[in-house]
Amino acid sequence: MSMYHTHTYIINGDFDQSISPLDRGFTYGDGVFRTMLMRSGLPVAWPLHYQKLVADCAALGIVCPSADLLMADFLQLFSAQDIDSKKLDVAKIIISRGEGERGYKTPAITSPTRVVIRSAMPLYAKHYYSQGVQLHLCNTRLSKQAKLAGIKHLNCLDNILARMEWRDESIFDGLMLDQADNVIECTMSNIFARFGKVIVTPSLSECGVSGITRQRICNLAPVLNLTVEMAQLRLDRILQADELIICNSLYGVFQVYKINDTHWAQQNLAETLRSLLAHD
Amino acid sequence: MSMYHTHTYIINGDFDQSISPLDRGFTYGDGVFRTMLMRSGLPVAWPLHYQKLVADCAALGIVCPSADLLMADFLQLFSAQDIDSKKLDVAKIIISRGEGERGYKTPAITSPTRVVIRSAMPLYAKHYYSQGVQLHLCNTRLSKQAKLAGIKHLNCLDNILARMEWRDESIFDGLMLDQADNVIECTMSNIFARFGKVIVTPSLSECGVSGITRQRICNLAPVLNLTVEMAQLRLDRILQADELIICNSLYGVFQVYKINDTHWAQQNLAETLRSLLAHD
Repeated sequence: MSMYHTHTYIINGDFDQSISPLDRGFTYGDGVFRTMLMRSGLPVAWPLHYQKLVADCAALGIVCPSADLLMADFLQLFSAQDIDSKKLDVAKIIISRGEGERGYKTPAITSPTRVVIRSAMPLYAKHYYSQGVQLHLCNTRLSKQAKLAGIKHLNCLDNILARMEWRDESIFDGLMLDQADNVIECTMSNIFARFGKVIVTPSLSECGVSGITRQRICNLAPVLNLTVEMAQLRLDRILQADELIICNSLYGVFQVYKINDTHWAQQNLAETLRSLLAHD
Repeated sequence: MSMYHTHTYIINGDFDQSISPLDRGFTYGDGVFRTMLMRSGLPVAWPLHYQKLVADCAALGIVCPSADLLMADFLQLFSAQDIDSKKLDVAKIIISRGEGERGYKTPAITSPTRVVIRSAMPLYAKHYYSQGVQLHLCNTRLSKQAKLAGIKHLNCLDNILARMEWRDESIFDGLMLDQADNVIECTMSNIFARFGKVIVTPSLSECGVSGITRQRICNLAPVLNLTVEMAQLRLDRILQADELIICNSLYGVFQVYKINDTHWAQQNLAETLRSLLAHD
C-alpha cells in the first residue's frame, strides 16, 4: 500500500491492482495524464478534459479508454457522500501504453493501463486570491520537440528539474522559457499577458502543454471584450505587460504580482476569470 | 503477474513487490536505467555501468542504491545454474525517485525504487555479424536539453516516436539527428564514423545517451592505432565515412552496411572491436 494515505487509486477499474515494472509508463514514461478538479465527486469541464485525453493518446498511438470506463472509475473513487457535499477534490488520470517487452518498439497489440488517483484539494493561501502569486524565473529550459508539443505526457523531467530550482515557499510556480528565450508556460500552469484589450498566450507549437483552462480562457475572452493572440512571447515583452495571469485546472486563475524584481499592482482580470470559469 | 513470462524481476530486493501508481517513475518518468549483458549470471563491465548509474542518479538528485544491494539482486535473479553455464542474459536496472505526492516538487525525503528485470538475450541474425545492419533515417529529432544530455533517464518518448517510424524487420535501428541536423545516435545504439585512422563519435553535450560501450570503444581505440574525436557530425559527412559502426551493451558492435540509399562494403572494424570487447 501507499505511504501517502491522502491518495486512493483505482487501476483498470480495480482497487487491488498495482503497476508492473514492465509497464511502459514506468520504463519509458510512455503515456499521458490529466489533472482535474472534482466538484461534488464529478470532474469539472469533463468534455474538454476527455477530448484532450483522446487527442493526447492519439498523438502517441495509444488507444484511449472510453469515457464510460473513466466515469465508472470516478463513481467508484467518489462516494455518494462526496457527491452530496460541495467538496472539491483532485482526480488524476494516467493512461500508459501498458506492458511491453524490453525495447522501445511498441507492441503490435497493447492493452493500455488506466489509473485514476484521488487526492485532496491543495490549500491555497488567501493572499493568492487577493494579491496574486510570485513566480521564479527558471534556469531550466523546455526541450523543443514539435511531435510532443502541447501533449500532457509522462516525460516530465524538464518540469521536475525546473521545480527543483527553488524551495522558497513564497514562490508559487516557475516561469519556463524555451531554448530560444521565448516564454512558454510555468511548471504547472499556462500563462497569459494582457496588453490593453489583448491577451497574449505563448504559441505551443514546439514545446509546452496546452491546458484545458488556457483553452477555456481563450473561449471566454470575448465576453470581457478581450482579443486573444497566440504568439511568440519574449521574456522582456512579458515583463512589460499591463497584467499577467497564470491558470490551471485546480486553482483556476491567479494574477502574477512578482517575477524576480518586476512587480505588478493588484488588478481584477484573474478574479473576473475565476468567477466566469466557476459559472461556465 | 506479468503477461511476459520471459521476464522475471525483483523490486527493492523482493520478488513479491510491485510498483505503486504514485511512484514518480510511473507518474513522471522520474528516474534512470541501465541495460546490461549478463554472462554466467554476472554483469559485463559492471564497474563502468555502476559508475554511470551513480552519475545519472546524481544528475537528477536521486540517491543511488549501493553496488552491494544491486549485486545481491543479481544473485537472487540468476541462479547457481546460470552462473555455471556460459549463458548470456539481459539485466535491466531501473532506479526511480520513488513514491511522491501529486506535483513535480521532489519530496524532501525520498526512498528510491530499485528494480532489476531479467530477460532473455535477443537473437541477432547471423548476417548482422557477417554483413552488418541496415539503419532507418528517423524523421523524429532528439529534444535538446543540456541538463539531461548523456543521461539514460526514463523520459524516452523521443526514442519511442522514432522507433514507431518503421515496422520493416530488415531494419535494425534508426539514426537520430538533433534539431540542427547533427547526427547524435541511434534509438538504442551509439555511433562511430571512421575516416582513415580517425573514428568520430557525436558530441553528446546537448542530447543523446552516453553509453558504456561507446566509452569502452574510445578506451580501446589506441590499441587499433585509431584516434577518437568527439565532435559535431552532420548527416552528409557521416554518409561519406569510410566505415560506420554502432554499439550497445548487448550486441557489442555491428557495422552499418546501409542507410537509405547509401551502402558500405563489409569491413572488419566491428568484428575486431567485438573481439577486443569480449577480452577486455
